[in-house]
Amino acid sequence: MTLRVGVIGGGQLARMMTPPALALGIELQVFSETENSSARLATTRVGDYTKVEQVREFAKNVDVITFDHEHVPLSVLETLEAEGFSIQPSPKALKFAQNKLHMRQRLSELGLPMPVWAEIKTALELDKFISENGGVAILKTPIGGYDGKGVAVVRTSADASEWLEKIDEFGGSLLAEQKVNFVRELAQLVARRPSGELATWGLVQTVQRNGVCAEVLSPAPNSANTESAAKIAETVAIELGVTGVLAVEMFETETGELYINELAMRPHNSGHFTIEGSITSQFEQHLRAVLDLPLGSTTPTAAHSVMINLLGVNNTNDFVSLYPEAMKAHPTAKFHTYGKAAREGRKMGHVTVVGNNAETVLAEARAAASVCLKG
Amino acid sequence: MTLRVGVIGGGQLARMMTPPALALGIELQVFSETENSSARLATTRVGDYTKVEQVREFAKNVDVITFDHEHVPLSVLETLEAEGFSIQPSPKALKFAQNKLHMRQRLSELGLPMPVWAEIKTALELDKFISENGGVAILKTPIGGYDGKGVAVVRTSADASEWLEKIDEFGGSLLAEQKVNFVRELAQLVARRPSGELATWGLVQTVQRNGVCAEVLSPAPNSANTESAAKIAETVAIELGVTGVLAVEMFETETGELYINELAMRPHNSGHFTIEGSITSQFEQHLRAVLDLPLGSTTPTAAHSVMINLLGVNNTNDFVSLYPEAMKAHPTAKFHTYGKAAREGRKMGHVTVVGNNAETVLAEARAAASVCLKG
Repeated sequence: MTLRVGVIGGGQLARMMTPPALALGIELQVFSETENSSARLATTRVGDYTKVEQVREFAKNVDVITFDHEHVPLSVLETLEAEGFSIQPSPKALKFAQNKLHMRQRLSELGLPMPVWAEIKTALELDKFISENGGVAILKTPIGGYDGKGVAVVRTSADASEWLEKIDEFGGSLLAEQKVNFVRELAQLVARRPSGELATWGLVQTVQRNGVCAEVLSPAPNSANTESAAKIAETVAIELGVTGVLAVEMFETETGELYINELAMRPHNSGHFTIEGSITSQFEQHLRAVLDLPLGSTTPTAAHSVMINLLGVNNTNDFVSLYPEAMKAHPTAKFHTYGKAAREGRKMGHVTVVGNNAETVLAEARAAASVCLKG
Repeated sequence: MTLRVGVIGGGQLARMMTPPALALGIELQVFSETENSSARLATTRVGDYTKVEQVREFAKNVDVITFDHEHVPLSVLETLEAEGFSIQPSPKALKFAQNKLHMRQRLSELGLPMPVWAEIKTALELDKFISENGGVAILKTPIGGYDGKGVAVVRTSADASEWLEKIDEFGGSLLAEQKVNFVRELAQLVARRPSGELATWGLVQTVQRNGVCAEVLSPAPNSANTESAAKIAETVAIELGVTGVLAVEMFETETGELYINELAMRPHNSGHFTIEGSITSQFEQHLRAVLDLPLGSTTPTAAHSVMINLLGVNNTNDFVSLYPEAMKAHPTAKFHTYGKAAREGRKMGHVTVVGNNAETVLAEARAAASVCLKG
């Protein structure tokens, strides 16, 4: 018997699904946009994922289709699902990850904690929202934003004139959100399989720089919200019908309140630490979940894990050439590289350290990463 | 910068080198004997490793050549080394792993603890050895034995008549060894890089059934020999000039004496537990070592690890189809499958469990394996 998973998208998430697929004897097939993607080792098709006939041909050779990213048009997925192909997560769930307005609407119905928000169609509506929310708003394009793209802080509709002028490109609406006065950001990962089983990892703290994840600390230090965060993520997974891994990014305020910021329905940067830091990594769990196999234990392998992203410092930065120095000084650090050409700010890899002392784990991870980022 | 490692042999060891190669951004290239080997994902050439011109073409595209098995003719490797290719471990070391007579001779010179042994060329010599060693001997072909093959227990030269008749096929000699009255078998893994650095894992106990490794317990329970075993393995690695991972299999007697049984100069079945049970797995360490990169920490990730081999119970046994049952009952078990066609007795995969209680770890590993082996 061969279990076959098809992943659309050839980024680092598909790359990092390759090791657990190999261990479990799952045949991983990646539909990549380019020949030389991060996931080239498992790539079986290079093409255009917006073309339903190409995705259909790919789908015919696998048991289930899942994703490295959230950019596949819903119409493509709906067509294939109607034809009987297994799409995990299904387009019914994915539409809430693809469109932030749909997400806010649905989470509101569920009564989950969120920033105040509004659908914005005109400058007038935006100015009204800003004045009602302390003179500032977070404005987002409903579709296609990630890593700080598609997000702007606005204090007047004039700050948003460019987006307002081409609002039709965004489907006629923007999303305005209250600027939450948070003290830190958290992320809660959960996996769910089609038959309903859930598995939740511990709550983590994420440190963002310039809108991009820089560090992840597991567990989130001194949080009183571990249970409520898990409950929120489980509710989202169940009520939105998510399968596979779901990441719920949240703000935490000084008084300990949680606000849901973003959802991702796939393995997520905030869960890379699970490769070493959990008995079952998010990548293995995602494969199990989309195949509707029983989920693995999410018990931590050590009291603390810290993951540091290796973001390109310039267009020639090559941290593989710094391995001799980095590995010598940091024998417990686990280095991950995504096989991408260097570019400033690009997610090129990450470093994880696990251990029983929070301070030394954090210090080691930062020190190991800093060697790789000398540029 | 791209680091490129070429592995000769497409078995499960090459397969299990693939995940750490991917994580570290090392380009792994496998020279396999067949299209559909265990290591097919990383296979870049299918051919005959006994042909120097084929191995040379393969070697031209990598920075270093290493091995999944010990069957490449020394003459091929010596030719390529003389031409300037990096072969790790070098043929100077490998000859001691390939030929058990050379190994015994060299370890005797080093004064390392071993069974009494003799080179046997005639029935007369064998009968003399048997009578001098309690009426029994372990007879081995010097080259090509593994997993119980090429090994026989003999009580008279008549038991060895078949081998003695075709002794020229074995280079004119057999190896006779004293039958050690051991209480258990141990294995000591060490890695060494060309520039000299050593990294030693903890001593493990191996349980053999029908000459094949069945279980590995890390650490070896109640052994007073952890330091002496490490010292033995380090001495072998240094004095024989081994690079990459070296496994030293040993007997332990009731009175706690150690006797070196076999050497393997590559990742070894006794080290599969390191994938989950050590900060640096034997597969990552082997890649680092042959590239002369600094070695990673060999600190255990938990107090106890147990690995159970999944040996084919028949020719149709398919434990992937038993995943639903096995994973449901054993969420902490890590399942590994090698992507091979089923065959009775064949190493098809393994299961590892790590944790802090020796008894529960062993029980879980055995129970998880038993589900997969229902046949």
